[in-house]
Amino acid sequence: MVSRRAEFAAAAVRVIARNGLHAATVRAVAAEAGWSPGALQKSFTSMDELIRAAIELIIEQAGSRMAIAASTGTLTGDIQAMIEQTLPLDSQRRDESKVWASLTIRAVDVPWIAHLLIEQDRQVIDALAGLLRAAQGTGEITADSEPVALAGALVALADGLAVRLLYDPSARPAVLAALAVGTEHLLPKGPASPGGRSKPR
Amino acid sequence: MVSRRAEFAAAAVRVIARNGLHAATVRAVAAEAGWSPGALQKSFTSMDELIRAAIELIIEQAGSRMAIAASTGTLTGDIQAMIEQTLPLDSQRRDESKVWASLTIRAVDVPWIAHLLIEQDRQVIDALAGLLRAAQGTGEITADSEPVALAGALVALADGLAVRLLYDPSARPAVLAALAVGTEHLLPKGPASPGGRSKPR
Repeated sequence: MVSRRAEFAAAAVRVIARNGLHAATVRAVAAEAGWSPGALQKSFTSMDELIRAAIELIIEQAGSRMAIAASTGTLTGDIQAMIEQTLPLDSQRRDESKVWASLTIRAVDVPWIAHLLIEQDRQVIDALAGLLRAAQGTGEITADSEPVALAGALVALADGLAVRLLYDPSARPAVLAALAVGTEHLLPKGPASPGGRSKPR
Repeated sequence: MVSRRAEFAAAAVRVIARNGLHAATVRAVAAEAGWSPGALQKSFTSMDELIRAAIELIIEQAGSRMAIAASTGTLTGDIQAMIEQTLPLDSQRRDESKVWASLTIRAVDVPWIAHLLIEQDRQVIDALAGLLRAAQGTGEITADSEPVALAGALVALADGLAVRLLYDPSARPAVLAALAVGTEHLLPKGPASPGGRSKPR
């Protein structure tokens, strides 16, 4: 049952990425998954529930990739690698980014979608602020800024770069350069950084 | 003629902000402007042309507000004030942000909209990079990073914060804190900064 639900959630992500949120009908998503509309309706009692599952699938997929990517040995390297996992740099991430961008627009007028995104922002920013606070404590980065505000800036940087890359794939080198410079500046090396530098490059 | 066109462009912004890009029909925009559909069609030969005018109006309005806001006496203060003019912090800026966010999504599948946004990104990033290069030259900010990449990071920060504030108006204090911390980090004070500090706060 769980796996049937996951199949439908993945099909919903593909349909939304291809044709937009309004295209995610029972018929279209069932067809994309290779099942009947009735089968979909046995797994999900409403389209809201299906979209919720699609959101959870994207978060889960990005989270798994981030956990693997975050092994560079430095906080700045890890955060840069994690943000790269949220940028539309290949077809799967492009699908995820398109769905996410569509959801942010719909969220402006649909409270339950806004609620999900706000909750997700809160979790991401809290987790990131925890990492930053720890790195400030050990001196890997300077302790001059409030971790939650810094985490909010990192998330906004990532979101802004993702959207630009969605409508301008040719900006890939510029986006990666902005990401590198942005993370280096937002995370200035502290007195006990692995490289031993006390000022940003 | 120019002023009639401007009236229709402003009406298009309001209609798109309220009901989305698909709602910007000849009938709806004409009604919003208080004119007949025929009058609109005399001013604009296509909806594409009208949407182009709406985009230009938003750029012009934001640009005028930025020119007034950028008088804080420091580069960091000016850039922060300019970015605030692009955030949905009042009803007009909220309308502009909603239209802009709707356009970025449509741009993924509509080449002429993508082309307009890419051109706008190029102009904004070039202008900002020019300011940063000059400030690096005088020593107001450190000269450690490539100005175009730094400008790209600032624009992405602004875009990401705008979208978050659109679906989460309650995040206003968090967004303003992230903006302040983000601009301070991205523009670390150089040896000849007005405050005379050589390290970021």
